[in-house]
Formats: sequence, structure tokens, C-alpha cells
Amino acid sequence: MKQSQLFTKTRREAPSDEVSKNARLLIRAGFIHKEMAGVYTYLPLGFRVLKKIENIIREEMNALGAQEIFMTTLQDPAIWIASGRWDDKMVDNWFKTKLKNGNELGIANTHEEPLAKLLTNNVNSYKDLPLYVYQIQNKFRNELRAKSGIMRGREFLMKDLYSFSRTEEEHKEFYEKVAEAYKRIFERIGIGDKTYRTFASGGIFSKFSDEFQTLSEAGEDTIYIDEKKKIAINKEVYTDSALAELELDKNTLIEKKTIEVGNIFPLGVKYSEAEGLLYKDANGSNKPPIMGSYGIGLGRLMGAVAEVLSDDSGLVWPKSISPFKLHLIGLTDASEIYEKLKKKGFEVLYDDRDTSAGEKFADSDLIGIPYRIVISKRNISAGKVELIERATNKTEEISEDELIKKLS
Amino acid sequence: MKQSQLFTKTRREAPSDEVSKNARLLIRAGFIHKEMAGVYTYLPLGFRVLKKIENIIREEMNALGAQEIFMTTLQDPAIWIASGRWDDKMVDNWFKTKLKNGNELGIANTHEEPLAKLLTNNVNSYKDLPLYVYQIQNKFRNELRAKSGIMRGREFLMKDLYSFSRTEEEHKEFYEKVAEAYKRIFERIGIGDKTYRTFASGGIFSKFSDEFQTLSEAGEDTIYIDEKKKIAINKEVYTDSALAELELDKNTLIEKKTIEVGNIFPLGVKYSEAEGLLYKDANGSNKPPIMGSYGIGLGRLMGAVAEVLSDDSGLVWPKSISPFKLHLIGLTDASEIYEKLKKKGFEVLYDDRDTSAGEKFADSDLIGIPYRIVISKRNISAGKVELIERATNKTEEISEDELIKKLS
Repeated sequence: MKQSQLFTKTRREAPSDEVSKNARLLIRAGFIHKEMAGVYTYLPLGFRVLKKIENIIREEMNALGAQEIFMTTLQDPAIWIASGRWDDKMVDNWFKTKLKNGNELGIANTHEEPLAKLLTNNVNSYKDLPLYVYQIQNKFRNELRAKSGIMRGREFLMKDLYSFSRTEEEHKEFYEKVAEAYKRIFERIGIGDKTYRTFASGGIFSKFSDEFQTLSEAGEDTIYIDEKKKIAINKEVYTDSALAELELDKNTLIEKKTIEVGNIFPLGVKYSEAEGLLYKDANGSNKPPIMGSYGIGLGRLMGAVAEVLSDDSGLVWPKSISPFKLHLIGLTDASEIYEKLKKKGFEVLYDDRDTSAGEKFADSDLIGIPYRIVISKRNISAGKVELIERATNKTEEISEDELIKKLS
Repeated sequence: MKQSQLFTKTRREAPSDEVSKNARLLIRAGFIHKEMAGVYTYLPLGFRVLKKIENIIREEMNALGAQEIFMTTLQDPAIWIASGRWDDKMVDNWFKTKLKNGNELGIANTHEEPLAKLLTNNVNSYKDLPLYVYQIQNKFRNELRAKSGIMRGREFLMKDLYSFSRTEEEHKEFYEKVAEAYKRIFERIGIGDKTYRTFASGGIFSKFSDEFQTLSEAGEDTIYIDEKKKIAINKEVYTDSALAELELDKNTLIEKKTIEVGNIFPLGVKYSEAEGLLYKDANGSNKPPIMGSYGIGLGRLMGAVAEVLSDDSGLVWPKSISPFKLHLIGLTDASEIYEKLKKKGFEVLYDDRDTSAGEKFADSDLIGIPYRIVISKRNISAGKVELIERATNKTEEISEDELIKKLS
């Protein structure tokens, strides 16, 4: 697309009330707009990143055999009363609202209960299990403070997958498959090498849950990493007995600050039992399925990438989720090569604006598209284009044909 | 996908509290689940239809040069106080909620105000206009009653496009382009021949707005159609003076019940002025852009298709938005042709369930996929498959090669 038509503009300064690096950069580059603390609109560039993250996650979920649905924001209190999670004392960050008749409604904090309830219409027999269902939908959390930009929102898009299994063995098998899928997601999104599967608190259902933690000084978590085993343990469960059980040696662990980019969680039968979700086993007795939940916040993931892959000049997008693959900078008219690149199927942002080279380069650094192609009168007459890699600043002058070959 | 793995099941009866035909059919066929009146979850089959509708709309919006964003559900009251629409007396179907500190928030009823406010960061000069921005996002309306299934929800997905123009002429030119795009959308979705562009109340900004109304006895609207001109007028503005102005002749008009599947609306400068959205014109004076809004409810559109294209046996999906293109009914093992069709790129639902032929046919009628292919021992040994068109019941026995050729 032509940058002259993109309605967002870069800003030299972020809003003074925005303290997080991710939101400051993303606002300055025109990816997001702050509606209020913890509530952000995704602008065209940010929307494109979000959709690419969504598609990567969707591909990996579908490959697990999970079925996609789209649940609701408005929630019936009865479903939550059944599990004991309606009371604000039990869940302290509900947003609630009211129908015209005065009846209270919940505004989706999470979706374990409504999904378990829904499945009572569909699951009868052990033949209906195991079953894997996911959605990509907004969640709402009434956080007291929200200062981490799009990494901890009051409103945020989340992929939440739920598993329903017959036996502990079946549950664990799928649980491990999801852990592998999560690894692939973080690798594809470009933060695989900085992300550790981390033992964390299992709550009341299990000794441990598993988090995926990405190294970053902006993170809210502290983990202890075993570099050789490529695993870690969260500070919250960092005790001698836990270390012994996980066969981790205190002396080889390194403490790091991290961002939680995903979590997978054994739920036991708490919610299936509470919602009356039962199946008949092979002997005809009624049993609640064993549930697992598996979350990834799309905005948090985008925020984490902004935190860990940016540099002093701006954002640095991995190819897989960049809003465009190529940033074509026209210091002279570059429409011809723009049309050619589009025809070849490349996603190109073409800076055709009537502004200085310096401003174009600074904006291009800030926006962070992986490849920049500079077209000037000088290199056109030499039959060359200048190709610059955003992450490394590696620059080369090559012919158009070489360029297309290289990028294909 | 294999139907044995699809977690939804068809139901003989709809819930007794569900009165609308669209929701009764869609629930029976396993497309949607009712959370509460006017609030529905989209199950795998329904989700697939929704995504196809979304993609058709997105293609047409992008072709207009509109830029997609994703706005928020939580809304800052200040933005709505500025336009006078915060007060429940002015907008009587708000859902509202509260932050922990007690401050009220709105739950998006619509998005004119937040978008106009957002654009104050991006629009400065007449060179930044005209500008077209859209999103596909949930809206929430606190309806007193909600009895029309997914056609009038308390929570519903909507595509809302907004235009920002410098002159009335520029505004009208785009307005007509959107009307053409809407026609294409309804044609592509299979209800073009039943849908009329209809003059309706323009509110305070303009004499008329334009609705797109689809013939259906289930509709909440009454319109008067001029079949020759292929336009109509809504009962709400059906006066002698309006008829004279629109050059419509009372005697040639036919009264019909209809469903409003889309509307396009001139907004004047009410919201741009209220939010302080101003641009400098060529003479350096500040002016508010002229706004238009253009809505299509995705669920309503899906509900309208269910209302107008179904028959006594169930749903009848147009090819463009059917959850699958082919319903492969295996009366014997049909995995070989299933794999072949998938490899050819067809979207196939393969009924591999261990159940009777009668049940499979009844379910297939109910689900409403456009083409049914029946594989039995008899036709396999004759080297043939049976192909049945859902809409017409037209049946033919053809070879696999002919089948693939015909459907490609």
C-alpha cells in the first residue's frame, strides 16, 4: 500500500502517561491507539500484525485437531454461580453489567464455565471424547492498574483452547502436544530462542502448570533457567522440594526477568463437575471429563515482540508477523518497481510521501519492516536498488532481478 | 472434516423458548448455541459461515480503499458526553460497567464517536482526506426483548465502515460507491435478487438514509417496492411528499415484509464537530469532515440467509458461504474419495458416522451444504457416485472424474 494513503502518522513523542516501552513504540509508530489505560485500538499496521499472529496460532491449533468456535462476551451468572466464580471475592477482576430488567450479567473474564456448560448438549458418551475446542475472542479483566501497554490489558484478544479427556494419560498426551505446538508458535513468531517452558504454580488441580516465558527486563515474572535442559522454574514455586522433584540443580540455574507469553494448565474435573458435564464410560457410569486450558494473549505476544526485538531506532518485526514484508522508500518515483513487486505477490509499503529522505528513513526504522528497499535517482541510473535489513542494518546494492530472487 | 469428529450434533427439536425460525434451524443443525436471549455462540459450522461472510465483506471493503482497524468494547464516557449520547435518555440501550475506582465505562453500542476522536491524532490537513476506515467487531445493545434469533442480538458482530469527506459532493460519490459494494455483497452471499435498496429515515442529518432490505415474512420492516426501478421506500417515510420527491407512484408499489441486512447513513458533521475533529482546508480554515456510516451485521446476514433460503427439511446454504462445499455421505467406506476430494482442494464434510442412511440424509438436509455426494456399495461397483443438489434436489449419477470436473 502507498504510505501517503495510510491514515496513521508516526509521532516523535509517545503520550506522557504511557510508561511501557511496547506501547510507547507502538503508539509512536502508529500501530495502536490508547483509548484508556489497558484498552487499545489496533490501527491498520497493528491490525495486520495481529491478524498474522492470529493466523499462525490458528494453523497450529487446527493441526492439533482442535475445532474453532466464537463464544460470547455477555455471560449468564448462573453458569458462574455453579462453579463458585461469580462472587467478586473469588474472582476480583470481573467487569459486570445489567440487563434492562435489572439482572446482572458478566463480561467474559474467561470461558471455562460457559464452554463446559455448552458441551453438556454435545457430549454424552466416551465416544464423544477426547475433544479439543478453541476460540480467538476478547477477554475483559478489571485490573486495578494497567501500566504494561498491550501486555496486560483490561480488554485483550486471547486464543483459549480447552481439552476434554477421559483419562489422565489421554489428558497428558494432549497437554504435551500443545506444549510442542506452543514452542512452534513462539519459534514462528521469532522469539523461540528467548522463550522457556517454565514450571509454575498448578493451583488446586495439579502440582504444576506450564508457562512459556520470554526473556525481557520489562517482564513481570522472575524465573530460574536451566540452560542445558532449556527449561525453567517460576520464582513462585522455587522451593527446595520443587527443585528436587524437577531434578533441577540450584547452582546451575540463572535468574531472569521474563514476560509470560503463554500458559497451559491442568484443570482436573472442577469445571466439568460444576457444570454437570458428564459422559457415560464404557461401563455406563457417568464421569466428568478431565479438562485442560491453554491460553495465548495475542496482544501480549505482539507487545512482547515489541519489547524484546526493538532497538533504539524503533520496532524490528520478524518476517512472519511484520505488517508488510518490504518497505519501499522512494527518494524518486518508484511506482514502477512498486507495481512489479506487488505483481510478484510481495506485501509492500511504498513510501511515496513528499517528505525528506531523513524523515523517511527515521519512520522506516521506527515502523520496523524487515527489508527496506531504497530507490534513488543514482541507483536507478546504475540499474541497482539498495536493500537494507532492518535487524542487522546489512546493506547491499543489487539489481532488481537479484532482489526478487533473494526475497522470494 | 470427518463428521464423526465434529463435536456438534443435530437435534430433532429446537429449544422451546426459541421462537425465531433462523435460530431454531441453526440450533437444530448445530451452527449456534444460545447463551441467553439475543446472545449466541458460533459453533464450528456456524463459525465457518461467519468467517466466509466476513471475508466477502472484507474483500469488498478493501476494494473501496477502506483501511481496517479493530476498536475496543470498553469506552470512555467523556467521548460520549461530548456528543450528547452518554445519557440513557438519548441512547436507551447502553450496557455500562464500572472500573474498580467506581468510574463508569460504556460497552460499545457503536463506534462513531471513538473513531472521530481517534482521528484527531491523524487528520490535520485537507490532504489527509477523504478517508475510509472500517472494522469487524462486536457491538452490544441492551434490547428490552430479543426474539429474532441472530437477527437482533444483544451482542453481535458488525462490520462498520465510516467515511470522512471534505465536500458534500465527495461524500455522495463515496456513499454511492458503498451502495454498489453492498449490492455486490448481497449478490455474492446469495440474496441479491431478494434485496432492495430502500429509502428510509435520514434522522436529523439528511432527508433519507438507505437501507438494504431482504424479502422475508420474518422481517421487522415493511417496505413498498417499485419492481421496475428495483428500489423501495420504508413505511416509516412513506408519505405523499416523500413519494413525490422520490418520483415513486403509489399505484405501482407493492407492500412487503423485509429484514434490514445493511444500512448506509449520512452523518453530516455532528460527530466530527462534537469530538473536535477538524482539518485545515486549502485556505487554512478549520473544518469538520462530513461523515457517513455504513453497517452490516454479520450474524443478521447469516440469520437472514437462514430465514429466506431454508426449506421444510432444513438450511440451504449458497455456495459462497456454506460451511463446506461438499457433503460426502458414506453408506459404505468412502475414505478414498474423501482423501481425493480434499487433495483436489474441496472443502468436504465426510459423514463417516456409524448410523443409518436415513439419519445421514436427514442431517444432511438439515445442515444444508449445497452438494451431497452419496457413496454406496451399489454405485461404487458401478463406478459412479450420486450427486444431489441441496437447493433443487436435482440428482445425477456420474463418474468420479465427471464429478470433479463439474464441481471445479
